[in-house]
Amino acid sequence: MGSESRESFLPLDPVSFTNESKAVVDFIADYYENIEKYPVQSTVEPGYLSARLPESAPYCPESLEDILKDVNDCIVPGLTHWQSPNFFAYFQANASTAGFLGEMLCSGFNVVGFNWISSPAATELESIVVDWMGKLLKLPSSFLFAGTGGGVLHGSTCEAAVCVLAAARDKALKELGGWEHITKLAVYASDQTHFTFQKAAKLVGIPPSNFRLIKTTFSTGFAMSPETVRSAVEDDIKSGLVPLFLCATIGTTPTGAVDPIAELGKVAMEFKAWLHIDAAYAGSACICPELRHHLDGVELSNSISMNPHKWFLTNMDCCCLWIKEPHLLTDSLSSDPEYLKNNASKTKSVVDYKDWQIALSRRFRALKLWIVIRRHGLANLMYHIRSDIAMAKHFEALVRKDGRFEIVMPRKFSLVCFRLKPTAAAEAEDDGRELNSKLVEAINSSGRAFMSHAVAGGVYVIRCAIGSTLTQQHHVDALWKLVQEKAQSLLTNHSIK
Amino acid sequence: MGSESRESFLPLDPVSFTNESKAVVDFIADYYENIEKYPVQSTVEPGYLSARLPESAPYCPESLEDILKDVNDCIVPGLTHWQSPNFFAYFQANASTAGFLGEMLCSGFNVVGFNWISSPAATELESIVVDWMGKLLKLPSSFLFAGTGGGVLHGSTCEAAVCVLAAARDKALKELGGWEHITKLAVYASDQTHFTFQKAAKLVGIPPSNFRLIKTTFSTGFAMSPETVRSAVEDDIKSGLVPLFLCATIGTTPTGAVDPIAELGKVAMEFKAWLHIDAAYAGSACICPELRHHLDGVELSNSISMNPHKWFLTNMDCCCLWIKEPHLLTDSLSSDPEYLKNNASKTKSVVDYKDWQIALSRRFRALKLWIVIRRHGLANLMYHIRSDIAMAKHFEALVRKDGRFEIVMPRKFSLVCFRLKPTAAAEAEDDGRELNSKLVEAINSSGRAFMSHAVAGGVYVIRCAIGSTLTQQHHVDALWKLVQEKAQSLLTNHSIK
Repeated sequence: MGSESRESFLPLDPVSFTNESKAVVDFIADYYENIEKYPVQSTVEPGYLSARLPESAPYCPESLEDILKDVNDCIVPGLTHWQSPNFFAYFQANASTAGFLGEMLCSGFNVVGFNWISSPAATELESIVVDWMGKLLKLPSSFLFAGTGGGVLHGSTCEAAVCVLAAARDKALKELGGWEHITKLAVYASDQTHFTFQKAAKLVGIPPSNFRLIKTTFSTGFAMSPETVRSAVEDDIKSGLVPLFLCATIGTTPTGAVDPIAELGKVAMEFKAWLHIDAAYAGSACICPELRHHLDGVELSNSISMNPHKWFLTNMDCCCLWIKEPHLLTDSLSSDPEYLKNNASKTKSVVDYKDWQIALSRRFRALKLWIVIRRHGLANLMYHIRSDIAMAKHFEALVRKDGRFEIVMPRKFSLVCFRLKPTAAAEAEDDGRELNSKLVEAINSSGRAFMSHAVAGGVYVIRCAIGSTLTQQHHVDALWKLVQEKAQSLLTNHSIK
Repeated sequence: MGSESRESFLPLDPVSFTNESKAVVDFIADYYENIEKYPVQSTVEPGYLSARLPESAPYCPESLEDILKDVNDCIVPGLTHWQSPNFFAYFQANASTAGFLGEMLCSGFNVVGFNWISSPAATELESIVVDWMGKLLKLPSSFLFAGTGGGVLHGSTCEAAVCVLAAARDKALKELGGWEHITKLAVYASDQTHFTFQKAAKLVGIPPSNFRLIKTTFSTGFAMSPETVRSAVEDDIKSGLVPLFLCATIGTTPTGAVDPIAELGKVAMEFKAWLHIDAAYAGSACICPELRHHLDGVELSNSISMNPHKWFLTNMDCCCLWIKEPHLLTDSLSSDPEYLKNNASKTKSVVDYKDWQIALSRRFRALKLWIVIRRHGLANLMYHIRSDIAMAKHFEALVRKDGRFEIVMPRKFSLVCFRLKPTAAAEAEDDGRELNSKLVEAINSSGRAFMSHAVAGGVYVIRCAIGSTLTQQHHVDALWKLVQEKAQSLLTNHSIK
């Protein structure tokens, strides 16, 4: 029937499971040991891998040794090393041993907890751990299972956005009296809001022309102005649209800006729009009492999400979503096919998380977040956030000391937005865009660090996002030295021309 | 600043990473060794876990030993053991050592390959491995990167469904001339199609009243009739609707039925509707030449998806989606925010998978599928499918030999649908529903096996889904003995009453 008999083909035999898994643990530990030796951004050319791998699958089994050799020779060179201490791009995805252990248990048990009965522990631990996380953030009890709300773990902010947008949409369509009103629904966010909300709104069928990008400026530090929102909403109402959804952000992707959620909450309430708070990046920081004020006003929102897989030492993927009225989520997303019917669900005494998310299937992500929190404890989690912020402050101070540079936006968390000041006439023409983009390219192509950029208020800024687990202050010092060295070389070339 | 200094707080230190990870490997190996000792379906009561765990997160770090003790004492009893050889419910989620190793590498590297530059290997390996998989299934080159199409790894069929529905929707709205036509779009599937397609259609804004559930019957083995689809489409066109999307299934969830895709493809083409093939469960089986005919006609479809995380020894989560015209997917889902702009993307010579899926962030799932395929080889993967089917045939034969039972639907893959024949007057009244549901309950509450049920054509059937990695023939024999024992006891009690 095949090349091996059932007796010799044992794909989950505990002995070989143990041996092979431990070999891979050693492989990964070696990778971490050596991670600083690799160029942070991969230097491969498009198409590099197809030249190195066969065009089709092998007929016979291959050894783990051969596979790991290929991982080492073919895959590692094509990685951009997110776990490198010299990774300062985008927002970090900071792994930890605890997060890894949680992923191992999740994958090892490999249960599919779509409803309570299919693995009660998967459902109940998730409900407990989202409450733990909510309490760490001092969310009002209206968002907790211990109160009148509840939470769920998704894979991404976009998934959370799709689900709350669908919940808000279906509530509105019910009130408006029919699906034909879908083209009247309008969604509001700032021009700094993560593009995932535009994508999510379009996904759930809101016409893209009904998505309002509220303009932000330097004057508010790129925070969304409640007055501008109000005026956009009023205009839309005059044109016959219905304000459905407003998204506020704590720590925007381009510059780490914070929208004033208390004031935005009042506007949203006045117009009966759903207020969602996207705290994907900076939510983690709000476990520290001195930073919690950024969430003031959260009680006025309908839902809030944040990503432990960014800054909370939780390996990919993990997004917490809390919602005040979970029944709005389940009204929109629930289904009850015969083949999933069971007594526990019938009693309505249990949570069936399939009705809180897009998919039926789901991984046991709660284990990971639970282990991350327990293995570190609030004390070390706060320490971790604070030391990243301290390093960012340190970098900011280094930038400020060098007159050729400027801090473009005030730093709030561990993201520093800076640039070389445009001085020469050629630079003033494009407000330093080319100069600074060349600087980023020079830094990244050195392989010694990886950074990314943004544009806010028309200004091109270099983003230094500190938060990789392995980053220590000497890495930040080395980064600054590298930035200065590359800037010097650019400016010299420039003045020679 | 915290309870520990940066020097002593090292959440990704290679030495403790190694030690703690190996302890968890041993824990999971022990779990597999002992898995048959646990009741397959958890016996806990709703709310069991909140009584055992603290209400809020700890302030100080806890030891791995304490955490693993709690996993053992509090979590394991609340698991329904999907990896048990006595798990015969739903469809299996069959884990393997190879799949686990792939998950470890994915989590260890923890790269976020949303676009090519953010980790070229993550993108390129994914493109290569979906082509490998497509070739194993003998998909036409119109679905492969090596041809004119392409593929992507999603987390679930529902995600794939949302994405292809959005692509089809946006193409249609463009042709129809505006978003207001969204309420005219109609979607077709059979009453056996997984509910996830109804959910996905509603998610993307198709009015639920425009979702047509085509009735199936015993006469076609619960396959969708092309004539019935045609007649539904024609009726809708008469009412001013636009046929958007038809979903055909290879191996339906209730009974494993197979829709006639070649004939359905002709209907879809005639009315310019998008044909999607959901081969979530049975797609894996089509790597065997003797089963490949179920995919005959696939060339007429626009997209096809299947889940290696069901029957292909690939740990959760992994869903392959192939599409003939990838530009329709990216037209609908792409975005180009300034903070992700880069030279590689600008040249359009690379794939940016963020534009092929819902979320921005994504895990490096390709490693897992790649290692599963290489570590087993096509030979053993076919052996694995065939031995599961052989065990299902064996179970089917056992059922046929016992005159009290009947096979309700012809078996096509490794799912056997059977029931106790209703004989007594009381049983005939509900066509044996109560009797058979009591039998399932008796089996499941014994803890010795876990099965689920479905209803097709009004008939309640017990589903015996064979495919857990650890299942061997003696487990199937024991299951049948258990079924007979519980049936005997039910029938005796019944006749006493």
